Amino acid sequence: MMVVMKSNASQDQIEKVVDAIQSNGLTPHLSVGVDHTVIGAIGESHVVPLETFELLDGVEQVVRISRPYKLASREFQPADSIFPLDGFSIGGEEIPIIAGPCAVENHDQLLEAAMAVRKVGANALRGGVFKPRTSPYSFQGLGKEGLEFMKEAREQTGMPLVVEITSQSQVELLCEYVDVLQVGARNMQNFPLLRALGETHTPVLLKRGMSATIQELLMSAEYILSGGNERVILCERGIRTFETSTRNTTDINAVPVLKSLTHLPVVLDPSHSTGNVDFVPAVARAAIAAGADGLIVEVHPHPAEALSDGKQSLTPEKFAEMVKQVDAVARAVGRKLVSVQETSEAQA
Amino acid sequence: MMVVMKSNASQDQIEKVVDAIQSNGLTPHLSVGVDHTVIGAIGESHVVPLETFELLDGVEQVVRISRPYKLASREFQPADSIFPLDGFSIGGEEIPIIAGPCAVENHDQLLEAAMAVRKVGANALRGGVFKPRTSPYSFQGLGKEGLEFMKEAREQTGMPLVVEITSQSQVELLCEYVDVLQVGARNMQNFPLLRALGETHTPVLLKRGMSATIQELLMSAEYILSGGNERVILCERGIRTFETSTRNTTDINAVPVLKSLTHLPVVLDPSHSTGNVDFVPAVARAAIAAGADGLIVEVHPHPAEALSDGKQSLTPEKFAEMVKQVDAVARAVGRKLVSVQETSEAQA
Amino acid sequence: MMVVMKSNASQDQIEKVVDAIQSNGLTPHLSVGVDHTVIGAIGESHVVPLETFELLDGVEQVVRISRPYKLASREFQPADSIFPLDGFSIGGEEIPIIAGPCAVENHDQLLEAAMAVRKVGANALRGGVFKPRTSPYSFQGLGKEGLEFMKEAREQTGMPLVVEITSQSQVELLCEYVDVLQVGARNMQNFPLLRALGETHTPVLLKRGMSATIQELLMSAEYILSGGNERVILCERGIRTFETSTRNTTDINAVPVLKSLTHLPVVLDPSHSTGNVDFVPAVARAAIAAGADGLIVEVHPHPAEALSDGKQSLTPEKFAEMVKQVDAVARAVGRKLVSVQETSEAQA
Amino acid sequence: MMVVMKSNASQDQIEKVVDAIQSNGLTPHLSVGVDHTVIGAIGESHVVPLETFELLDGVEQVVRISRPYKLASREFQPADSIFPLDGFSIGGEEIPIIAGPCAVENHDQLLEAAMAVRKVGANALRGGVFKPRTSPYSFQGLGKEGLEFMKEAREQTGMPLVVEITSQSQVELLCEYVDVLQVGARNMQNFPLLRALGETHTPVLLKRGMSATIQELLMSAEYILSGGNERVILCERGIRTFETSTRNTTDINAVPVLKSLTHLPVVLDPSHSTGNVDFVPAVARAAIAAGADGLIVEVHPHPAEALSDGKQSLTPEKFAEMVKQVDAVARAVGRKLVSVQETSEAQA
Repeated sequence: MMVVMKSNASQDQIEKVVDAIQSNGLTPHLSVGVDHTVIGAIGESHVVPLETFELLDGVEQVVRISRPYKLASREFQPADSIFPLDGFSIGGEEIPIIAGPCAVENHDQLLEAAMAVRKVGANALRGGVFKPRTSPYSFQGLGKEGLEFMKEAREQTGMPLVVEITSQSQVELLCEYVDVLQVGARNMQNFPLLRALGETHTPVLLKRGMSATIQELLMSAEYILSGGNERVILCERGIRTFETSTRNTTDINAVPVLKSLTHLPVVLDPSHSTGNVDFVPAVARAAIAAGADGLIVEVHPHPAEALSDGKQSLTPEKFAEMVKQVDAVARAVGRKLVSVQETSEAQA
Repeated sequence: MMVVMKSNASQDQIEKVVDAIQSNGLTPHLSVGVDHTVIGAIGESHVVPLETFELLDGVEQVVRISRPYKLASREFQPADSIFPLDGFSIGGEEIPIIAGPCAVENHDQLLEAAMAVRKVGANALRGGVFKPRTSPYSFQGLGKEGLEFMKEAREQTGMPLVVEITSQSQVELLCEYVDVLQVGARNMQNFPLLRALGETHTPVLLKRGMSATIQELLMSAEYILSGGNERVILCERGIRTFETSTRNTTDINAVPVLKSLTHLPVVLDPSHSTGNVDFVPAVARAAIAAGADGLIVEVHPHPAEALSDGKQSLTPEKFAEMVKQVDAVARAVGRKLVSVQETSEAQA
Repeated sequence: MMVVMKSNASQDQIEKVVDAIQSNGLTPHLSVGVDHTVIGAIGESHVVPLETFELLDGVEQVVRISRPYKLASREFQPADSIFPLDGFSIGGEEIPIIAGPCAVENHDQLLEAAMAVRKVGANALRGGVFKPRTSPYSFQGLGKEGLEFMKEAREQTGMPLVVEITSQSQVELLCEYVDVLQVGARNMQNFPLLRALGETHTPVLLKRGMSATIQELLMSAEYILSGGNERVILCERGIRTFETSTRNTTDINAVPVLKSLTHLPVVLDPSHSTGNVDFVPAVARAAIAAGADGLIVEVHPHPAEALSDGKQSLTPEKFAEMVKQVDAVARAVGRKLVSVQETSEAQA
Repeated sequence: MMVVMKSNASQDQIEKVVDAIQSNGLTPHLSVGVDHTVIGAIGESHVVPLETFELLDGVEQVVRISRPYKLASREFQPADSIFPLDGFSIGGEEIPIIAGPCAVENHDQLLEAAMAVRKVGANALRGGVFKPRTSPYSFQGLGKEGLEFMKEAREQTGMPLVVEITSQSQVELLCEYVDVLQVGARNMQNFPLLRALGETHTPVLLKRGMSATIQELLMSAEYILSGGNERVILCERGIRTFETSTRNTTDINAVPVLKSLTHLPVVLDPSHSTGNVDFVPAVARAAIAAGADGLIVEVHPHPAEALSDGKQSLTPEKFAEMVKQVDAVARAVGRKLVSVQETSEAQA
């Protein structure tokens, strides 16, 4: 952090800034220029609120030089984080695909979906049992019953489970059943939930809020990391902009930006980021071309009957086609998809 | 809801749409045009997901005619909702001002702030004890200890308390202490929390999410209303846009838009919607001129020492000046501020 | 401008930065800190591109301290600019209202509109003759014929004319007829047009682009000012955001922000910033409460027959009611509307 | 277009809507439902302004069924448009890359850049001679002198020239020198310019405005097409959002969305859409993976000395590396880059 004093700042004002820096546990260093005095602050400045300094008399501007997060940063850990899941890893050379229905609706729908996606290349199964819905009149999820269906799907397919958590009160139940806890866009800044997740040992797939900056996403990851849970997977799922021809705007820039700023794995959700099956395969290919470490995709055996997100759910046939396309792109950028074969063997 | 069929839709496709309408509890009515058949659906269509219909074969477009919320709408209740609080009402001709520090920091800071704002025109006291902070390294609030200080401030000033809730696990504790539960922007779509609030009898001040549409704000209010809690106060607090010269962009349009769509009271938070004390009074005046029913404002006795939001916290002196300006504008639009006198008497 | 060197920057790298500062006509001043060397640059730094410096080896960050515009800034001219128009001024204590139809459609429509708005309080007449329309199939304006009608309206009502210019090829023609040249949102960064306007002596009403930052608006004003034309009126007309319930989002914050940054007059266009007559009066009142120096409003004698923008055009009756409300708010903030009486006398 | 009447609309109101439809040259068809009467309008409804109908008494809602553009739509022309340029085509299976400096700065810089990009895979040369710059104090371009340098570069490399036009007054001059006229983001809705371009026979590369919707981009293309110029190439170059870690947000969704809506070729500009060389290659790969028909990329022999956009300009070395990566991705999606060999031969 550097505090630039106004050109007419008094000696007294400078001293007060120096005191404030010290009382925040940092070491001040003065640079007296002809026009402006600049006071650098060395130390763990990511824990210091900049705005406090902006309010001190005589201060012109405060410039943050180091980033406001630490554990999530590439500076803290230069090498990519690679997390092993059941039979495969995420964050490494091989790219896993998480697929399944938006919501677990009933036993048969889920099992049919799970078998179908497994057959054509999915490595993990997604399916919501606590659904955050804009309308109180929409289907809200099956809760524990849905988890039992998920468990059965796991047993039949060998795929690990990715399930959304919407409240810290669900932590215990979900940790019993699932392999990865998903935090949805609407909960990216649900800080009590993030703190609760920091205390678990279950990997977290953290989705970017629909109007969250990349830095805020990393700050939310920092909540989980600083609680002791090191396995955070970041997920770009589209941001809200003025464009209305798609449900959200896929921020494809976020993929290389995140890969440069953090060591954590980055996956992309082309279903929510477009909201339309017609555009999901193109954006899935783009994600892998841009360097994403994985995909999470909505697939439903009968989209027209889906209780939520039918419009953006691929049929198993279209999903199969997408997987082939994505694999070709992965190989073009020197990577490849996690092969289903390998996963099955690991399960066997 | 109206389903417009494609010009080449088959009789079979039309019948499937008719069936789907009926199975959603609605009554279908066909209008056979030369070019397109249009199928109207009459009944409680706010509970029906439009997108399901868009996926049926032969459907060109689905048009929602009624709104997706009901209890919150002016159609459901044409007259303004007016909720009595301690000694004054919100939603009526008189305009209350809620003021206080962003966070309860310690006993003396809070009591000093409470006395100061009370003296110059505040009607209710705000103060956070569970703080949602972007960084895990920032001050997170005093919790129950802070509530004790708030209680003392209430006793000394007679002002009702407005305190933010960040998790449904806090409902019981907060309901014991506070008069209005505030839902912050980041929790506007924390649906488990909204459902929990619907089951209380405590008024809720529901802030618009930073990228929430006006319709989504009303849908979140509908969660609380449909749970049985009728006292929801809506709050515009700025939205996130590309403009960076202010912390958020005050959506002043939202004030008349909300007043036309809903009977619920609408307040505005000029502190968060600008993020800068230099602009708070101008936007506070604008809010009242546009028809807002109240204001919620951050005031701190010593902003430069604030543990959060110092930059946007008015001093008591600037707040007093703002109150005078706002009162003049209120009178120009045929309203007036709740007088402090009246409130005190009501308390006595 | 301050260039912060990386902590490991070499002496050679520092010298290259110093050279670059000098070759841009600025004076460098080194501040050697323990961690970072900071090189200040004193002089006319608003003409220097920051990004050049960011690319030099060893540079950590470049911080602009002074603003990238000069003539438009309050630092350059602390006192408000007040421009006299026919019979009244803009930028001073009294607030003028510019009103009229979106487009000049025919002789009778324009004359009827002009007489109607004049009668109930308008001070200047707006009306487009070159219309920028999203669709090539929409009405594009009457061109010179429309200017003749405007001229006649001026003669009959005494009101000065505000007309939009969409190309530098129209400068000569329009300067012959009109009193204020309006630059629309889509042309705010039409730099050849801005340069052409800088060479005229006709006042310019410069609208903010729909996705332009406040700083970019001031940079565009700087184009006109630096060409020698000092009379630039800035206009907030709503920005594009994710919210779809109104045509644009009125950035009410922009009013006090602009008044703090610049000496130029600031007006607001509630017709475009809301796109809906139901919300125009509320936002007009808000604008004046927030400190705007004027309003520009669309009024049409028969909105349902308007060839463009009918939905946001007030009838003369609603406009009259709005003027009364706005006048009351103006008085509440210590100002008042320019009285029609005065203007008429000035014309007589 | 369909006009939905209010449930209580009178027979007289219905007749007035029918009249209005007929007077717009369309054929009305009534569908009388139990609840609502719906009036369809058949014919060339893309030339009819919807909002006029929304203002008629008794109208509940107006729904556009056909799109507001025609010549640009896939419905009008299902097959992809393929435009031959010098020695290669755009819009077909093979993907061309346009590269070169942001601005033509001097003879040697341009020639060096042209030779360098040609050698490693560029098919056409970009270079601005009329620069739209936010600040009036920034370098504004060399004008005609720059065109002479471009002409020389064309002679030496055989590459066709892509040059930005910023005013219709430049049409004659530019058409004499260049092969493709580029319309920048800031001029996407400069309608006088678009009309002037519609009258030329020179291909146009039309960039999306930074806050333009996809539909608006197509409407601007329609201006050019309806003037008689059929060769319009659309360009996604990033949109403005709240995210500040990149200069713009690449709307990768726009690629498949545009390919589904229009037959026109779609290229992507990763330099402006990211603003940072570190992210250009990743986004270039993503563009091709998503189905883009070409790329336009800024390359400068010495970015740190560039007079504009240095931060986003690749060195020739990095550009060469990017071309290789993009070619691999193109092959993965069943396409390939236009080979430089072929182009050279075509020139010879």
